[in-house]
Amino acid sequence: MRAVIRRNKQLICDEIPELTPGAGQVLVKTLACGICGSDLHALHHMEHMIETTRRASGGGDPGGFDPTADTVFGHEFCAEILDHGPGTTKALKVGTRVVSVPVTLTQTGMEALGYSNALPGGFAERMLLTEGMILEVPNGLPTDQAALTEPFAVGAHAVAKAKLDKDSVSLVIGCGPVGLAVIAGLKAKGHGPVIAADYSPRRRTAAEMLGADVVIDPAVESPHARWESFGVPTARAAQAMARMMGKTFGQPVVFECVGAPGILQALIEAAPAGSQIVVAGVCMETDKIEPAIAITKEIELTFVFGYSPEEFAYTLRQLSDGVIDVSRVVTGKVGLSEVAQAFVTLGDPEAHVKILVEPGR
Amino acid sequence: MRAVIRRNKQLICDEIPELTPGAGQVLVKTLACGICGSDLHALHHMEHMIETTRRASGGGDPGGFDPTADTVFGHEFCAEILDHGPGTTKALKVGTRVVSVPVTLTQTGMEALGYSNALPGGFAERMLLTEGMILEVPNGLPTDQAALTEPFAVGAHAVAKAKLDKDSVSLVIGCGPVGLAVIAGLKAKGHGPVIAADYSPRRRTAAEMLGADVVIDPAVESPHARWESFGVPTARAAQAMARMMGKTFGQPVVFECVGAPGILQALIEAAPAGSQIVVAGVCMETDKIEPAIAITKEIELTFVFGYSPEEFAYTLRQLSDGVIDVSRVVTGKVGLSEVAQAFVTLGDPEAHVKILVEPGR
Repeated sequence: MRAVIRRNKQLICDEIPELTPGAGQVLVKTLACGICGSDLHALHHMEHMIETTRRASGGGDPGGFDPTADTVFGHEFCAEILDHGPGTTKALKVGTRVVSVPVTLTQTGMEALGYSNALPGGFAERMLLTEGMILEVPNGLPTDQAALTEPFAVGAHAVAKAKLDKDSVSLVIGCGPVGLAVIAGLKAKGHGPVIAADYSPRRRTAAEMLGADVVIDPAVESPHARWESFGVPTARAAQAMARMMGKTFGQPVVFECVGAPGILQALIEAAPAGSQIVVAGVCMETDKIEPAIAITKEIELTFVFGYSPEEFAYTLRQLSDGVIDVSRVVTGKVGLSEVAQAFVTLGDPEAHVKILVEPGR
Repeated sequence: MRAVIRRNKQLICDEIPELTPGAGQVLVKTLACGICGSDLHALHHMEHMIETTRRASGGGDPGGFDPTADTVFGHEFCAEILDHGPGTTKALKVGTRVVSVPVTLTQTGMEALGYSNALPGGFAERMLLTEGMILEVPNGLPTDQAALTEPFAVGAHAVAKAKLDKDSVSLVIGCGPVGLAVIAGLKAKGHGPVIAADYSPRRRTAAEMLGADVVIDPAVESPHARWESFGVPTARAAQAMARMMGKTFGQPVVFECVGAPGILQALIEAAPAGSQIVVAGVCMETDKIEPAIAITKEIELTFVFGYSPEEFAYTLRQLSDGVIDVSRVVTGKVGLSEVAQAFVTLGDPEAHVKILVEPGR
């Protein structure tokens, strides 16, 4: 079958061996699979990502993954059941459209689909999924939108980690796919006002589309200047004074969805005292902070990653129930032979919001 | 009256003008006042501390404090009422021993005692306190111990900010005054096990004295190696596996009580996945972290500072009720003329736990 293979830090469209579903697995046809920012980073910096994972797991072996061997990316997918392996319940029939957290259990352990040497991710015509993890796409949700379950689950998780109360004002810094998922997650839970900021006009338009209440170009206006306009005093002394006068204001929460060095310290300095900064943007470089300022302001830095299976399922329901409208998020579709070019195109934030790969295209 | 004055980055014992209590104020005789690590730092780096405060308050004026003008340090005090100013209730009589959060209200605003050009702190024979903020020392609590209310309130606040549950294992890194206060705060609330680590034998002994369950010399053994011995899996995958097998373990919490560059990142790498790191040690230098590792492990960095008036009052009760036994914390007492030398002596962690200044000595 055909797939896009990462080999020698390049993307090559070529044949890979056919798959046979093992015990508990289903063979699926990949209908659509989004290109994630992590894929763009991993194309050139997989070794560094693996080193980070190794250090994060206390120096242990990160599941035997070899970043120099072939990998087929793709972890944001919607697929269709083609066949069932031995020991499956076949509760979902052949032809059923499904999504899944991108993890497949094998006899030797767990494979992270999209970052595995053993199993292909969604940039391949077919994949192997674990039957116990697949979820049927609820009737009527288009395939393109179902494929967005994974990136929007990231937003649901970040929002779940935020200490929001009913008066909270949230600030979302960066309106790429992570920022958009956070905005959608906030609005889906009824939170507001949500202030969103991005230098890119296209991304600001997308932020509006997903429900941000105020959308700001940081080149023109500081997003932090808006706190006070929503009644949140930024300095501790002003907060104490406001509370003495019986004024209430919610926990200020900032979502860092950029992932570049320097942003954290800029937020530590600009956010109101007592803010929670939920760090969802993945900065892969060493960063510098001034702990004394974070201490004086009693900042909380909450680093978040991924989502739980429950959050993934919850997000799928929110998309299918129309609580989150992602009908205009996909701005481009490509076949397997066009994936390498799409990776280049996505380097420009003005070009696209989300590109889906359709292996059958 | 006599006081120890910070002038030209030196400590000089000299006369300062007598004080007259204003509206709502009481004049007190300073009985004892602890020397704090912040004082040691401020002696040479006050300008930097003020710059940090200025940045933390969004660039505003930090209360008009001039770090180049004379200052009388001392914010950990026990005092005795000498006289009442106009408009006071006189609910506490002359001769009553009191403590207070080190803030005095004046007609022009708030003065932070110990870091004020207008009012002296506790390294002076007398001080002005705000009547509405003073607390009577409960019957029988020795003056030396009452003077420890302030530093131990810092521990109560740090513990209150920790997301401890009944199965939590806590690790306290650094057993200087902040670490000791955290250990005491944890044990006072019934938490355990508490693992404490410090390179200094004297500080390790103090940690044991305040109730740490395990005390470790990091030069001999990694304090982090002890997590697993208390049933806390350190890697995310091991945690997931343990939970699947029905095993429970509490939220791992690390208290950073050192305040030196590099410690935060060392803790981010060594702590179990999902740990909360409560940052109570004040690192005044720029620090470096690896956000990608903090994200992968979903670390929470909670920067904490000071305490509330309620936590201060609660700590005083805990000291007087014997819930926290601080009877052996004070290891030295000096008169005003010996304060400059005591600042030098405290540079050696082996020399002392806490030195009190007795202006009447």
